[in-house]
Formats: sequence, structure tokens, C-alpha cells
Amino acid sequence: MKQAIIITIGDELLIGQVVDTNSAWMAQRLNEWGYEVFSVVSVHDNAEQIVSALAEAEQRADLVLLTGGLGPTKDDITKHTLCRYFGTELVYRQDIREHLEQLYANRPDVLNRLTDTQCLFPANATLLSNAVGSAQAMLWTPQPSSLIPHPSTVISMPGVPYEMMWIMEHSVREVMVNGYGLQVTGNESTITHRTIQVTGIPESALAILIEDWENALPNGIHLAYLPKDGIIRLRLSGYGVPAEQVESERLKLLEILNAHNPDLVVATEDKPVEVLVGECLKQRHQTIATAESCTGGKIAQQLNRHPGSSAFYFGSVVAYDNSVKQHVLGVSRHDLDTVGAVSEPVVRQMAEGVRLLLHTDYAIATSGIAGPDGGTPDKPVGTVWIAIATPDDTYAQCFQLGKLREQITDRATLKALIWLLKILKK
Amino acid sequence: MKQAIIITIGDELLIGQVVDTNSAWMAQRLNEWGYEVFSVVSVHDNAEQIVSALAEAEQRADLVLLTGGLGPTKDDITKHTLCRYFGTELVYRQDIREHLEQLYANRPDVLNRLTDTQCLFPANATLLSNAVGSAQAMLWTPQPSSLIPHPSTVISMPGVPYEMMWIMEHSVREVMVNGYGLQVTGNESTITHRTIQVTGIPESALAILIEDWENALPNGIHLAYLPKDGIIRLRLSGYGVPAEQVESERLKLLEILNAHNPDLVVATEDKPVEVLVGECLKQRHQTIATAESCTGGKIAQQLNRHPGSSAFYFGSVVAYDNSVKQHVLGVSRHDLDTVGAVSEPVVRQMAEGVRLLLHTDYAIATSGIAGPDGGTPDKPVGTVWIAIATPDDTYAQCFQLGKLREQITDRATLKALIWLLKILKK
Repeated sequence: MKQAIIITIGDELLIGQVVDTNSAWMAQRLNEWGYEVFSVVSVHDNAEQIVSALAEAEQRADLVLLTGGLGPTKDDITKHTLCRYFGTELVYRQDIREHLEQLYANRPDVLNRLTDTQCLFPANATLLSNAVGSAQAMLWTPQPSSLIPHPSTVISMPGVPYEMMWIMEHSVREVMVNGYGLQVTGNESTITHRTIQVTGIPESALAILIEDWENALPNGIHLAYLPKDGIIRLRLSGYGVPAEQVESERLKLLEILNAHNPDLVVATEDKPVEVLVGECLKQRHQTIATAESCTGGKIAQQLNRHPGSSAFYFGSVVAYDNSVKQHVLGVSRHDLDTVGAVSEPVVRQMAEGVRLLLHTDYAIATSGIAGPDGGTPDKPVGTVWIAIATPDDTYAQCFQLGKLREQITDRATLKALIWLLKILKK
Repeated sequence: MKQAIIITIGDELLIGQVVDTNSAWMAQRLNEWGYEVFSVVSVHDNAEQIVSALAEAEQRADLVLLTGGLGPTKDDITKHTLCRYFGTELVYRQDIREHLEQLYANRPDVLNRLTDTQCLFPANATLLSNAVGSAQAMLWTPQPSSLIPHPSTVISMPGVPYEMMWIMEHSVREVMVNGYGLQVTGNESTITHRTIQVTGIPESALAILIEDWENALPNGIHLAYLPKDGIIRLRLSGYGVPAEQVESERLKLLEILNAHNPDLVVATEDKPVEVLVGECLKQRHQTIATAESCTGGKIAQQLNRHPGSSAFYFGSVVAYDNSVKQHVLGVSRHDLDTVGAVSEPVVRQMAEGVRLLLHTDYAIATSGIAGPDGGTPDKPVGTVWIAIATPDDTYAQCFQLGKLREQITDRATLKALIWLLKILKK
């Protein structure tokens, strides 16, 4: 199996000011291209640390991807550091200059002497173009003069996520496929991941249920449990085994789960629940709206974040204040005053109200106490009522979803979407 | 400066199935406690890799924090691996069993023979309690018998974010302060970060503007540029210098920025823009609502994600479909048909409509083309109209915000909030 190592560079990662979302995204691409990611290392904008991480990565990996530290400002030192590491120097490239002039044609204030340093490029590196930003990416083929017995291909990219993504999807993919024979093919190098999503069973009980099957898994295939917010993703990973073998194990697993309880499996692939809901609705030409109190628009957000959602998602009312519940959704003032906003009658009226108001087939409503304040002995923080209005009926259920605000709203969002998916599939 | 190294364990991190959000959060806490984070390393659920990362970390760090791999299922091997590393064995602890019985009092299905393996704990480790989950954390003080000349304190925690956070905030903080003298104090170990948020100037032009000041920064203080979605965060970091010195440099920097253009600085601290908006509104006892098309509830979400938001945030209408714009917000059908939904008249009517409907002081509205489809030569993907309705007037502006759906909606959200903040501060 060919190995890749990712090195992310930036003080901001190590003081916790920025979460590294790049590595996960890059790892997915690398797996598709046949590389296993051996490790991810985050280091400071510090020449000694960058060099030592890179030298160590070269000992292990066939391909090393670096991100970060390529900006025009003083704190960015990756380009200079790599020049020293690869024994080369920076040369001024007119082609980069022309790219910058085009990129900033409407913004003359961006083209100044500092931006001009972006035209300096290591003499012995290959340029991987970045059409959406000013810092160009660099590629070094394995350097035979290196002191390392099996040197790696090294690629350095900017850390701005969408620039890195563009470069990976275009320039790196291009050299992977055409340029340097970087893409790995053949059965020995196949990496296959298959995921089944399960709900309504504790992780440990699930593990006991499928224990015999798991113990009998063939070499090269293993299982991982990823529990989060009420869903357990069971991931089968095959390294260097044919994809069909992984698929056949997946089918066996499905059979065991369905035989135990047909309600366990919510999805047979690793798609987010909101995508599955959307696919279901699109297929039937049906539509949905949401009326959200404690989730504050999170369900709406999930439903419309993917392309094509306008086919089934109409809109939402985030009814945070009671006046909005009453005047926009038509919730009874009497119920709000007597049983309170976090109650079955109110959440039912919210779902039915928004379904009527926006003329949709389905509607989800939430009302709960996300905290940290507002809890009572009767309705502690974490109490969430969810209702689903359908063309036939309205369903409502109460959940206890934890103690932390973010956790409660994330779980309520997922619970509502899983529940709707189950109703749609019936 | 005392050094910490974070090791995150889990195949899911290295195949890109899960983004590591733990490290950034832990790094912030560690900085507060006087530790610089030297590096973050993510490795597979693989004993050899865990041992090698830990042994290497012990060479460098005073404190090593590990997360992940402590679940009850077969793929979780961290506890066994650490036992071998520290030459000890697992013993059954009745106190953990009692904790589990309490934790799952209402869920008897969770207490089974697999959960019971969570009661096994390394004989020579100190238990750091986890009140919100079943996997307990472990601490090893520097092991004198170790082959490493300067061994580290090693702490292993579960990878579930809210469990890790609880353990850090309670059990680790407790041993930091009381137990083992882990907290670092004294001037030499002070780590200070101060951030100023700037907008409306390219990064390179900003760097040229403050060049002389930056070059004159005293030893131990450095500056980082963190550009994202239209805001540049300028971070001053002081390592081993008194906090007052960092503060005095921050004031000098503020002076330079304000002298150049009083509109540059949007915030003098590292708070998210939506928090600054909320603080402003709360202070004045004013309220806000949103009417969102392309942002689909993202602005609502930002405004209500922090505790206490019900004081100023009333609600939102996510008007994804034109029928919602027309029937709920009162947008003119004629305008929708002639100039289209992504236009100045429509976005103005959306803002004014939701302000009237929900009876708030301010309202934000967005209407744009988030793509990938729906673009035209006149209105390409990335075109976003934003309007802000205030008690005095309604403002509207058109932006070009990029090419990728997520990037466009993120930027539109931030643009709208920054703009509102500027209006509020006038």
C-alpha cells in the first residue's frame, strides 16, 4: 500500500485559533487515488520544525503533502524553508505575474510589492497552478541527490481551504493521472470504505450482536465503530483486497442487522441523513418546511446546504420568540401561557402551522430547552419536543438530549431528520 | 516554555471521515495553563504507531495528551497499548462499575459484558474521572523507570468531543491546579494571544501599512495574519514576555490602523462577529430578525448559537421558495416576475417584510445564487444581494462572493454580520 503523510503548517493550528479541516478532505482524495494516509502532523511556522517533519515523513511516505505558510506576509516561511531543504533558490516567474494581473484585474490595490513576492518560485520545483488564489503550489519529484534512501514526492500548497481544494481537484489530480504516474492502481493498492448507519442500539450491544461475524472477517478487512449523536456508523475498510470482497461482507452485515431488527439500519451508505431525506422527497416530488425554536435554523441549514435542495425544500420559520410562534405559526396563546412553549400541543401546532403556511407536504418542528439557562425540574435543560406533520397525521415525541447547548441542538437536528427518514421509508 | 504534544488516535481521522476538532480546543486550554503546543500528530488505531508517536513525543514534551481509541469495541486499542508501553496490566475497578450503573440507570440495555470492559483500568495509572461517559481517562506521572531521559506526564482521554471537554474542564484542570503541579506559572511561561480583526483591505496592503511597526516588534512577540472570508485576524502572540508588553504593542497597532482608516478595525478582540453583534444589541435592548434565501438559515444559526441570544434574536423566515417570499414576507409578485428574486427591490422587501412581521428593530435579508446551478451571464453564481433594515432606513448592496456553494453562503453570512456591526457602531 502506498503511503502518504500530510503536514499542516501554521501557529494558528497549534494555539487552537483554527481547526484543521484540510487534512480530512485531503485524506478522502488520497484514498480515492490509492494512497493510505499514514499520519497527519501539524507544526508551527518554524523552519527547523518544518524541515524535521518533512525529513521524517520522507522516511516513511511515498507522497508528502504540505499545506500552509505560503502567504505574502512575514509569518509565512514555508517557501523559503523548502528552498533550503531542496538546495535551490527562488526565481522570478513572469507567468505567475501574468496570472496575478488577471486574477486582480478589478482590484489594483491588491497588486503591490508584497504580492509581487508571490511571483518568486523555487527554481527546481514544478509549478502546480492555483487559479483561485495568488500562492502557487510546488511539486518536487523524489530527489535522487537527497540523503534519504527512498525520497518522496513532495507537494506544497496554500492552507486556505478552497484554494487547496481547487489545486487538489485540478492541478494535483492532473499530475496524479498524467504527469508523474503518482496515481496508484491495481488490486493490491485498492482502498475501499463502506459504511452502514445504525440507530436505536447502544454501541456495546451492537458489538455483541455482530461479534461472530466481526471475528470471522478476512485479513485486510476491518470494522470501525463511529458513534455520534445517536447514529453509529459502522465502517468496513478493505486495504489491498478486491472491493467485491468488502461489498460481500457488507451484505452479510446488513443481513444480520435486518434479521435482528429491521429498524436498526437508517442508511446503507455514508451519506448524511439530510441527503437521504432529500433524495427520498425528490423522488416523490414532495416538499418540506421546518418550524424551529431550539434548533434555531439548524435543520433548515442541513436541508438546504446541498445543491439541488430547492426541488424539495421550501422554507422555514425560526420561531425563537413566543410572539413568532403565535403570530406567524398560529400557535394558541392559551397553550403557550398554560403548558408552555416546550410542550406537545405547541410543537404540534408549530409543525402543522408551518406546513399550512408554506404549503408543503411535510413539516418538522422543534421546541426545547438548549440551555444553559431556562431549565426547570419538570423540563430540565436538554428536553426537546419534536413534531413531524405529514399529509396523513402529525406525530410528536419528547427527548432528553444531553446537557450542552451545541450537543442538544445537534442531536435534536439529527433525531428529527432520522425520524422523518423512517416515516418516509414506511 | 513548557511544551505539550497532542496525539489524536483513530483511523477515521486518517481516511477523512471525521474532522479533528479536539486538538484546537485542547490547544486553547493548554495555552491558558502555560503550555505551548509543539505539535499535533494523528495516527491510526495501530499499536506500533501509537507507541512510536508517544515515545517520540516524550523526547520533546513535558506533557502528552492522547485522545481516542478508548471505546468498548474491538477497534479501540489505546488502553491495551498504553498498558504495554507503561509495563502494567488492567485491573477491574469497582468504582468505575458503580459510576456506569449510575450513568446508565435508565438504560439497562447499555450495561452488558462489553460495557463491563470499561471497568478495566491500568494498575499504575491515576484515574481522571469522566462523569458524562463510560471511558475513564488515565494519567501517568513521568515514569522514572522509563528509558527516556526526561519522560513526560501522559494523559489519555476518549475522543468523543464533549467527553474530552468535560474531562479537560474538570478532571485535568483539577490535577493541573492541585494534584501534580502541572500548571505552569511565572512570567517566563506566560503565553499571551491578542487579536485585532480587520476588514476592507487586502492582506498584502495591510502588511505594507504596518511593516515598520512589525519589524520593530520586540523579541518574544510575533504577528500572524489569518485571512478568512473577508476578515483578516491579526494575532499578536507573546511567549515568555509579560502580557502588558503584548497589550502595549496591540495598542500601537490599533493606533496605526485607526489613523489610516477608522473603518478598518471591526473588532479589537478575538470574538466571533455574531457575538459582537449580540453584545451591541443586548446593550441597547434592541432586537433582530432575518429573512434568508441563499444563506438558508445560516445567519439565524450564527445569531442564536450562543447562550443568551433570546434577549435580542426573535426569529427568521428562511424564504427559499419564491412563494414564501411573496406570501409570508409580502414581496411583490411583480418584482419577483420582472427583476427576479436576486435583486435589490426583492432583498429590500424581504428585510422590511420580516422586520414588520416579527416586530424587531433590525432585520437582515439575503438573496443570491449559491450554485452550482442557476447562474446567468448577468447574475453569475456567487452574486448575493444583502439588505439591512433599521429603524431609520433600509440599505442594500450587491456582492460577488466566489464560486463554491459553501464559500458563498459562509461569506454572505459574514458580510451581512460585519455590515450590521458597522451600522450598529455608527
